[in-house]
Amino acid sequence: MKKIWQKDKSLTDQLVNNFTVGKDLDFDDRLAKYDVLGSIAHCKMLAEVGLISNEESLELLAVLNEILESIENNTFEIDSEAEDIHSQIESVLIRKLGDTGKKIHTARSRNDQVLLDIKLYLLDEIRAIGELTDSLFQLLIRLADQHKKVLLPGYTHFQIAMPSSFGLWFGAYVEALVDDLELLLSVKNIINKNPLGSAAGYGSSFPIDRESTTYHLGFKTLNYNSVYAQMTRGKSEKLLASSMAVLAGTLGKFSYDICLYLSQNFDFISFPKEFTTGSSIMPHKKNPDIFELVRARCNRIQSLPNELILLTNNLPSGYHRDMQLTKEILFPAIDSLKECLEILIYTLPNIEVKEGILEDEKYKYLFSVEKINEEVKNGNSFRDAYVKVGNDIENDDFQYDTKDLNHSHQGSIGNLCLDEIAHQFHKISSKLLA
Amino acid sequence: MKKIWQKDKSLTDQLVNNFTVGKDLDFDDRLAKYDVLGSIAHCKMLAEVGLISNEESLELLAVLNEILESIENNTFEIDSEAEDIHSQIESVLIRKLGDTGKKIHTARSRNDQVLLDIKLYLLDEIRAIGELTDSLFQLLIRLADQHKKVLLPGYTHFQIAMPSSFGLWFGAYVEALVDDLELLLSVKNIINKNPLGSAAGYGSSFPIDRESTTYHLGFKTLNYNSVYAQMTRGKSEKLLASSMAVLAGTLGKFSYDICLYLSQNFDFISFPKEFTTGSSIMPHKKNPDIFELVRARCNRIQSLPNELILLTNNLPSGYHRDMQLTKEILFPAIDSLKECLEILIYTLPNIEVKEGILEDEKYKYLFSVEKINEEVKNGNSFRDAYVKVGNDIENDDFQYDTKDLNHSHQGSIGNLCLDEIAHQFHKISSKLLA
Amino acid sequence: MKKIWQKDKSLTDQLVNNFTVGKDLDFDDRLAKYDVLGSIAHCKMLAEVGLISNEESLELLAVLNEILESIENNTFEIDSEAEDIHSQIESVLIRKLGDTGKKIHTARSRNDQVLLDIKLYLLDEIRAIGELTDSLFQLLIRLADQHKKVLLPGYTHFQIAMPSSFGLWFGAYVEALVDDLELLLSVKNIINKNPLGSAAGYGSSFPIDRESTTYHLGFKTLNYNSVYAQMTRGKSEKLLASSMAVLAGTLGKFSYDICLYLSQNFDFISFPKEFTTGSSIMPHKKNPDIFELVRARCNRIQSLPNELILLTNNLPSGYHRDMQLTKEILFPAIDSLKECLEILIYTLPNIEVKEGILEDEKYKYLFSVEKINEEVKNGNSFRDAYVKVGNDIENDDFQYDTKDLNHSHQGSIGNLCLDEIAHQFHKISSKLLA
Amino acid sequence: MKKIWQKDKSLTDQLVNNFTVGKDLDFDDRLAKYDVLGSIAHCKMLAEVGLISNEESLELLAVLNEILESIENNTFEIDSEAEDIHSQIESVLIRKLGDTGKKIHTARSRNDQVLLDIKLYLLDEIRAIGELTDSLFQLLIRLADQHKKVLLPGYTHFQIAMPSSFGLWFGAYVEALVDDLELLLSVKNIINKNPLGSAAGYGSSFPIDRESTTYHLGFKTLNYNSVYAQMTRGKSEKLLASSMAVLAGTLGKFSYDICLYLSQNFDFISFPKEFTTGSSIMPHKKNPDIFELVRARCNRIQSLPNELILLTNNLPSGYHRDMQLTKEILFPAIDSLKECLEILIYTLPNIEVKEGILEDEKYKYLFSVEKINEEVKNGNSFRDAYVKVGNDIENDDFQYDTKDLNHSHQGSIGNLCLDEIAHQFHKISSKLLA
Repeated sequence: MKKIWQKDKSLTDQLVNNFTVGKDLDFDDRLAKYDVLGSIAHCKMLAEVGLISNEESLELLAVLNEILESIENNTFEIDSEAEDIHSQIESVLIRKLGDTGKKIHTARSRNDQVLLDIKLYLLDEIRAIGELTDSLFQLLIRLADQHKKVLLPGYTHFQIAMPSSFGLWFGAYVEALVDDLELLLSVKNIINKNPLGSAAGYGSSFPIDRESTTYHLGFKTLNYNSVYAQMTRGKSEKLLASSMAVLAGTLGKFSYDICLYLSQNFDFISFPKEFTTGSSIMPHKKNPDIFELVRARCNRIQSLPNELILLTNNLPSGYHRDMQLTKEILFPAIDSLKECLEILIYTLPNIEVKEGILEDEKYKYLFSVEKINEEVKNGNSFRDAYVKVGNDIENDDFQYDTKDLNHSHQGSIGNLCLDEIAHQFHKISSKLLA
Repeated sequence: MKKIWQKDKSLTDQLVNNFTVGKDLDFDDRLAKYDVLGSIAHCKMLAEVGLISNEESLELLAVLNEILESIENNTFEIDSEAEDIHSQIESVLIRKLGDTGKKIHTARSRNDQVLLDIKLYLLDEIRAIGELTDSLFQLLIRLADQHKKVLLPGYTHFQIAMPSSFGLWFGAYVEALVDDLELLLSVKNIINKNPLGSAAGYGSSFPIDRESTTYHLGFKTLNYNSVYAQMTRGKSEKLLASSMAVLAGTLGKFSYDICLYLSQNFDFISFPKEFTTGSSIMPHKKNPDIFELVRARCNRIQSLPNELILLTNNLPSGYHRDMQLTKEILFPAIDSLKECLEILIYTLPNIEVKEGILEDEKYKYLFSVEKINEEVKNGNSFRDAYVKVGNDIENDDFQYDTKDLNHSHQGSIGNLCLDEIAHQFHKISSKLLA
Repeated sequence: MKKIWQKDKSLTDQLVNNFTVGKDLDFDDRLAKYDVLGSIAHCKMLAEVGLISNEESLELLAVLNEILESIENNTFEIDSEAEDIHSQIESVLIRKLGDTGKKIHTARSRNDQVLLDIKLYLLDEIRAIGELTDSLFQLLIRLADQHKKVLLPGYTHFQIAMPSSFGLWFGAYVEALVDDLELLLSVKNIINKNPLGSAAGYGSSFPIDRESTTYHLGFKTLNYNSVYAQMTRGKSEKLLASSMAVLAGTLGKFSYDICLYLSQNFDFISFPKEFTTGSSIMPHKKNPDIFELVRARCNRIQSLPNELILLTNNLPSGYHRDMQLTKEILFPAIDSLKECLEILIYTLPNIEVKEGILEDEKYKYLFSVEKINEEVKNGNSFRDAYVKVGNDIENDDFQYDTKDLNHSHQGSIGNLCLDEIAHQFHKISSKLLA
Repeated sequence: MKKIWQKDKSLTDQLVNNFTVGKDLDFDDRLAKYDVLGSIAHCKMLAEVGLISNEESLELLAVLNEILESIENNTFEIDSEAEDIHSQIESVLIRKLGDTGKKIHTARSRNDQVLLDIKLYLLDEIRAIGELTDSLFQLLIRLADQHKKVLLPGYTHFQIAMPSSFGLWFGAYVEALVDDLELLLSVKNIINKNPLGSAAGYGSSFPIDRESTTYHLGFKTLNYNSVYAQMTRGKSEKLLASSMAVLAGTLGKFSYDICLYLSQNFDFISFPKEFTTGSSIMPHKKNPDIFELVRARCNRIQSLPNELILLTNNLPSGYHRDMQLTKEILFPAIDSLKECLEILIYTLPNIEVKEGILEDEKYKYLFSVEKINEEVKNGNSFRDAYVKVGNDIENDDFQYDTKDLNHSHQGSIGNLCLDEIAHQFHKISSKLLA
């Protein structure tokens, strides 16, 4: 394996190479397309400012477009000789165009090139996560509406507390996704700034035009300062990880609820057998493995920001090779989060909710606050009514006949405000998916 | 210590109380003001919807305003009997107004009350962090501009790489603050939603008007779903912690740079002696303790999101008492972050930058890329020029006479784009501080 | 506030001092005693090797013993002038003994002095944690034995699985403590090495005798290498935190079980009302706040190792002031862990276990494996019997009459092996508490 | 893909299967061998207690030994039909032996089977890590001894402090490995307990003999309690991760030192060019990528315990499928740690240390304490000498002619105590590698 910039005299020892390359090649595929897109923009700009001629630019663009096509067709091949995807693409240009090919790296460094590739890749993944979140949102809002009249015990401290409903429960996760997407949108905005032209982190003496590449690549603006552009390596990954962790926190909590509600001791919901798993020893088991694994994967995703902080904290400014590992930390986690969203989207339409849960005697105290409220409506103060009902319960005298609930305020059982929540969501998702 | 809702028959064992209250009282002071503001809004709404009379409302508001004043004058006293600040305020109302006082807790739970207090408090702290960040930003932009012509070695891998400048270095942190504030702004927007009326997390059967309290409290909108409103406990704290961690990451990296640049082996900057610390054994020492401690505190702050995730993950929906600890995790960290900002704002104006650093022979290879670029401007391809200069260096033939740098592109030594960056910052900070 | 080593010309700015001292003084009290013990050993050694005279040594020892006594009586006062506890003690020696007092810091640095104090303090706290763990162990083993015949559903995936018992459940936590203590013991052994004499981390040119102070202080051995001795700062704290986190993991899991088992949906155990907490809005509530807070505190403790890693990773060798913060991270967590152990020891004797739980119809499938095993004992292969019982369950044909279980192997319901476990525990605890 | 325990009527949906199996198969290979070893021991025990006949046992053992051989020859094939390695092995037994094969899973569950496999695997990996650590230890002790007379500046706060040496520096990491191995040994002892027979976590009604399998498998003792045995899943992984993190902390710090010392601003050491890496833009670069990547990988490893805590905390007792992910978290990290050790062992013999570093004028104040000590030896008190030398430095009057250092105490430049440290190490490593 020979690096383009390698001076002829030395051959890097295989061992060193294996260690330093590590798992990097596994994640390079994803970047190939973006690397070419970056080179196309860079090439156009080089011609605009006169660092290469228009003819050279056209030659380079022709080959770059061929490469792009072969990448999209999955026919692009990486030589066993090539150090990485970036070198491979430069090699093809040199092989096909000779001296003209050798000009593509003018006013650019591997550092800003990789930075750029990663940012473009992350922006696409943010959109993909946004789309899946949108689908889950639609599904949950449908379930909330569909089951809005089915009551559920509400718990605090794992103790039965007050009446809730499936509408309220599904609706809570509906609304959670609004906030999760808002955070993701701000992360998108922060990442959506062009680092190209910052070179190795200190810019260059070529009169390049960074506004031009910003325009060609469709970035909203640029990371102006070259040193800061370099600092966004690691920071972009950390920011995305943080917003993924918040979304994962929502999915994980939802999955925990499901695992619990599927337990015979709650028995609030069920799934067709094909969504559950058996046991090697107990023939009666219908285990909620899907949801346990969503929870577990989401816990892994919640560990990401910390892992990236550990990788990057206490490193002074300037590129360090440590940054290479952000790829192997973040990229598989992006896949995993998308898979969690997908499996939920696939599985949840099959959820079956149980009716009549609150008829079980053990849930009667759920209505103690209703009883107090009745007293208040009859003129008692809240604190006095509280004491009275408390004494009734103490003396085993508590009765609450009717289970007709008249919760009507915004966000209560009888008034889920799903439209308002959907409105908030769409305002955000339309920006995110733009 | 007797709780308002305690049934007379039992006296909670002192030990249990000590354990469950823990350090909570230390953090309650901060919430007192917000608790009263919440009660004022709640009281107005109760009268609007007819749950209390206008006369009752006026009586309650009069006492609440007295309490608010006494809190602002630091004359509000907490009985040793009171369970917490929330009980204390309710007690005063009951003591002064009798039955009318007992009505304040109508259609409210301790849960949504504390949620509200915390949100109002966090919103104020976000503003305070924003203001300090703004001051630091102004200071750094001044330093960047002032020292824009003083060169500095740029490093990658801790190896000398290419020429940088103090302007570029300070400017990098200037721009970092733009992104950090953008994240903080989105967190503010997410927190800025009214949870009041969600009660214990399942709403209530009273016909309350949550839009009204949203208006009275100045929230942008509300957390509609009652179950979700409750889920924002822990999540709001986690979100703020995540954005604080990102800002802390910036301050920590800057402080690491400073510690390194103060080392005799770099010797790029200095501070007047009063900003450094001596040693108990070595009389020559001038240690950069301030910056080591900013770094260390910022590392603690970077551990916050993970600590809050560990506290809250794997808890199903519904309130759990675990949430109490978010206060003792987050509140002191907010103070600590503000102190870090303050000490930097106080200290940095005294920084002295060294001129002529690059004249030292050991920095000559910083100019190898300049040499290549000259070759390229003379018609060589980048890759060929790279090889030529590489050979010169190899053969100890590398010379680069002039240190006149002509970096002119956006974000390079000669073109810091401070105005553009300032423009971005002000767009965000004006929203954050609104 | 004036530091002993401060050169007269400058007065450290109050602001800088406030920031750098931070919360350190709050944690210094705990170290006072150990600081004096360290000075006593150091003083004896200085006389032994002739760096001070025997007369000087006796004078110093007399005052040091006075100070030790006043610390133990809580009458030791810290001047508002004193920088920290270490300075304060040196000041008293100088005030009382003049030039002789000025000799105590010979061949010592603040660095190895603090290192020593912290190690001695941690060793005492390890013993204290060990003693509380021992008490909890005794209590749990008693509960396991007492309730060994009371059956409990065993769950996997939150699904009912196979029969368990209170004996098995309590016994699990009994055995967990064996492993937790074994880890703590190894941490004790690693910390139990004398760092004194390493000075600022590079030793000194005085002919001190580090074996002598090792002997006087009762350490098992010494941290030989001076640079490494300094590295144990932060590492000792991290190691203790890791072992505390493992113990906290056990207590947290146990508390989670309790919170769940107290839920009306499980209803396996109960506690007298005074160990539960009411609600401000729901008069029927008996919340398990103690156990939620044990869980929550234990989750905080489980975040400790990571927080200490974040503080210390990526710092090259040599002391950095960052280390100061280990105290404020670790010391309160030690208190908190001890309080968790104490409250469990106080509360658990009051646990009430419910009998006859398995009579509820919903638990019948717990016995499906028993049924298979019967078939196997009658000559069927395991896999064929599994299929047969599975079909019976599928066809609603599953019956299992007798609930007499004959689990007899080591570690099963009928054979808890508590004596064997106790034997393992005592072997470890006797070393830890030595 | 059909599971052994799958009832015929249903075909698990491919999607669900893909999601739940995840990356698990990638890590199953490592467990194959241990799975067979476990089955061999289980089979012998079943015969001993009469649950199978001796003939059946011999048949099963014969096939199991064939499988073991094929695994060791890498000729064992996994059907695309098989759910996992454990099913595959059971399938082969059934295919070859019919009804006898169906008996292997008697009195065993997938849970204790996997637990066992993982423990056996981890024990082998602990030995492997121990051996590599031993090699690194030998190498470092040789380097410490070889360069013991070459001086190095000692730093505190990144400021030059007192004289150090390469002997002291290498020796520090030598001694660090003693403590790291001691922790690893205790983790080995905790893991080294047989979980087999705990079945799904609640034992079984078969009269199995768990002491027998403990003996056959070479475990030191057993996890008695079946519920606790199941709790060791996740806990064993967490414990190993914690001890790996401590070792990684040592390697990471060492690598950070190396990166810094290779910087032109320190220039204390160098490596032959083949151990460094070039730059795509700067022809003069010799970057220390190996050491940056050791540092980075070690930071990832330091995030492991937290990741495992996040996966497992807040899960009540009883198996949860979440545990599956411990494999994909821990196993690749074990490889990575071993690779870090290997690359250091391969690279460090090539380190070149620079002589005469301290002759540079900028290091003269390193000797300020030497000067004080001379004054003390001439009768001055330490504090008075400190003030005098401080004044000399202040007035630019500081001179220190001779650089002959006479550090002689244990652990100082002149007395590295390498033999004592080696003795401690060997006591531990001999137990670990046993």
